[in-house]
Amino acid sequence: MSETSKNSRRSFLKGAAAAGVGAVAAATTARAQGTPDPLITEVQPWATGLGDGVDATPYGLPIEYEADVVRRNVPWLTADPISSINFTPIHALDGTITPQGCAFERHHSGAIDLRKEDYRLMINGLVDQPLVFTYEDLERFARINRVFFCECAANTGMEWAGAQLNGAQFTHGMIHNMEYSGVPLRTLLEEAGVKPEGKWVYVEGADASSNGRSIPLEKALDDVLVAFKANGEALRKEHGYPVRLVVPGWEGNMWIKWLRRIEVMEGPVESREETSKYTDTLANGTSRKWTWVMDAKSIVTSPSPQAPIKHGPGPLVITGLAWSGRGAIKRVDVSKDGGKTWETARLANPGQPMALTRFYLDTSWDGKEMLLQARAMDETGYVQPTKKMLREVRGENSVYHNNCIQTWWVKETGEAENVEVS
Amino acid sequence: MSETSKNSRRSFLKGAAAAGVGAVAAATTARAQGTPDPLITEVQPWATGLGDGVDATPYGLPIEYEADVVRRNVPWLTADPISSINFTPIHALDGTITPQGCAFERHHSGAIDLRKEDYRLMINGLVDQPLVFTYEDLERFARINRVFFCECAANTGMEWAGAQLNGAQFTHGMIHNMEYSGVPLRTLLEEAGVKPEGKWVYVEGADASSNGRSIPLEKALDDVLVAFKANGEALRKEHGYPVRLVVPGWEGNMWIKWLRRIEVMEGPVESREETSKYTDTLANGTSRKWTWVMDAKSIVTSPSPQAPIKHGPGPLVITGLAWSGRGAIKRVDVSKDGGKTWETARLANPGQPMALTRFYLDTSWDGKEMLLQARAMDETGYVQPTKKMLREVRGENSVYHNNCIQTWWVKETGEAENVEVS
Repeated sequence: MSETSKNSRRSFLKGAAAAGVGAVAAATTARAQGTPDPLITEVQPWATGLGDGVDATPYGLPIEYEADVVRRNVPWLTADPISSINFTPIHALDGTITPQGCAFERHHSGAIDLRKEDYRLMINGLVDQPLVFTYEDLERFARINRVFFCECAANTGMEWAGAQLNGAQFTHGMIHNMEYSGVPLRTLLEEAGVKPEGKWVYVEGADASSNGRSIPLEKALDDVLVAFKANGEALRKEHGYPVRLVVPGWEGNMWIKWLRRIEVMEGPVESREETSKYTDTLANGTSRKWTWVMDAKSIVTSPSPQAPIKHGPGPLVITGLAWSGRGAIKRVDVSKDGGKTWETARLANPGQPMALTRFYLDTSWDGKEMLLQARAMDETGYVQPTKKMLREVRGENSVYHNNCIQTWWVKETGEAENVEVS
Repeated sequence: MSETSKNSRRSFLKGAAAAGVGAVAAATTARAQGTPDPLITEVQPWATGLGDGVDATPYGLPIEYEADVVRRNVPWLTADPISSINFTPIHALDGTITPQGCAFERHHSGAIDLRKEDYRLMINGLVDQPLVFTYEDLERFARINRVFFCECAANTGMEWAGAQLNGAQFTHGMIHNMEYSGVPLRTLLEEAGVKPEGKWVYVEGADASSNGRSIPLEKALDDVLVAFKANGEALRKEHGYPVRLVVPGWEGNMWIKWLRRIEVMEGPVESREETSKYTDTLANGTSRKWTWVMDAKSIVTSPSPQAPIKHGPGPLVITGLAWSGRGAIKRVDVSKDGGKTWETARLANPGQPMALTRFYLDTSWDGKEMLLQARAMDETGYVQPTKKMLREVRGENSVYHNNCIQTWWVKETGEAENVEVS
């Protein structure tokens, strides 16, 4: 922190305290100098007895007081719980890593139970040598580690129809961000030897849906990973244990779980998941397809409908996440007035390609209502659009690829609501 | 991957296949062209039914097949399970992030149960204005995100007496590495206003042990964090929920959990935890104290006693972790012959200051026994020493700060054992 910003902050806090508007300094000074606070002046029960020993939890879960920080679904969204979705509690998280335990799920025929011993990965089609790998085989290839976001193409999809879901978890929670360890798909394809006429790969999972998708060979040879660890440990069952595909920056539907087969082909398959689904129907009834890349997007996670402001006017940290499937986030702006004026937020760390970036706006709240928005810019110069701009190009028939600017109406009470501004 | 390395790898694999020594290519080719493998040629049960729906686990745990990837203790190490330790299963992890669920614990009077509403942090002593913060107050200050390792000073401590514990989890598992979100301690100290005579802070926790430690003001104002999130979510109970101190690069004992009080003082307290404990007794009976920084260190996590080689000769990935409390890891070398010859390992990513670095040596195993070692070098030019070198300086009375080179004897069977080489 620079001396200048430090001093201006202290001045601000002192000013706030002097004005008696409930700033941090005022609150804490009162506790230290005014009425004694027994929680600090008296010996508490937890300071006198013994707590849990190290045998309590060989694998630990969050403390009971965090029981609301879980994946949630929206029952009316889909009738069938098996082929359904849930959402990461992004309103309650900070930093950038998403713990596997609360990272969103999307299944097409449910999360299957597949042992490492039963795992096989076949590479066939236009290759010099068809190959079948066991899990142990995969562990013998040089592997790499990278952090990437995975966003469902349908994330924010319900918002095409208006301001529908009241919480960042539900509007933007079909995303997670993990450190993957895996073998570059390029390595395995080179092991099999791709024939000159091979231009695409078709990838499918071992579950009943198989969820097959076509990927251009150029992408397959670029940065796609055959991953077996996330955030250091084995993939969770619901994320494709023991092996999933990681397709950086591209829609989550292509990140095939329980990865079973990779066929090298001359052209794409035009499978169900890339024709009737995961395309964008335009106003004239035709559909955009091969809309693989997730464009730059951002969301204020706090304050938000599930994370209201619980204090009075004064210092307020506005925070959120930004990402782009085309590279690194370079800048995030925040508006408090529905997009009329913008302030540039602080990025917690320099943006990394195709990974979540945390932003903060360290500000002062005057206690009045706000129309909070965030707007991301990525390294290509692309700027996150308004919903109006998206609708002008795409019409109103879309479900997928909604990367519009989101608005939270923060009321004088500190509560927030999902609204749409023209 | 460069063309050169790609080609040499393919040549190697083809050669190995021709020689029939069980390399990856040989194994996979046999499965693809020889005896049909029903696991790939026949429809399996998990491809015909439905798996778990999204309501199965609002907060997910690892799949049952990973039940051995848990924290473990060593019963004979300490008699009292409350004031004891357990170990991160580093032999089974990859990448650099440690999931909170299996990150080691060390308690001095057990893990206490402290609600956010009951949380208070006092700053007192040589300050202009004593302050008491609630949890909510802390959330109103500008916060940052950083990944740091936390290593217990006693990690590898049992190895001073010889090769004692048979597994990387037990010899080197008192370490974890997480992405923290928190407020710089500097911000809070500036809020209170440190008086000119204040040169140290004394920090203590809310548990019965209080575990008080003295920290020079220079460090406190440098990079110490008052953290409330780790890997995106709330700290776990066993790691200090709701607030712990993060003291980058310094011994874990100073990372006060359930952080309760910070007193600004003229000098250090010379508390139990920094006099009779966490000092290094030398050959002449005197003790080194203020040995805060964890020096550069590394460990091969696989193969290792708990992670034997399960395949025959041919491609083998040797992997491990390196770290330094003095900055970034710049290089890791691996020896297969007990330190006679060394090969430079590949760092998965450039080393980050005071954070774990993953290294790989992508090699070929000839099926013969190896004496595996890793040797870390950090950005200061410091090179991880042998145990012999450490003993020459420190004698054999120490428990803490053992950063010596570790040796695994990998046998022809692929099994590994903790040994000491002269």
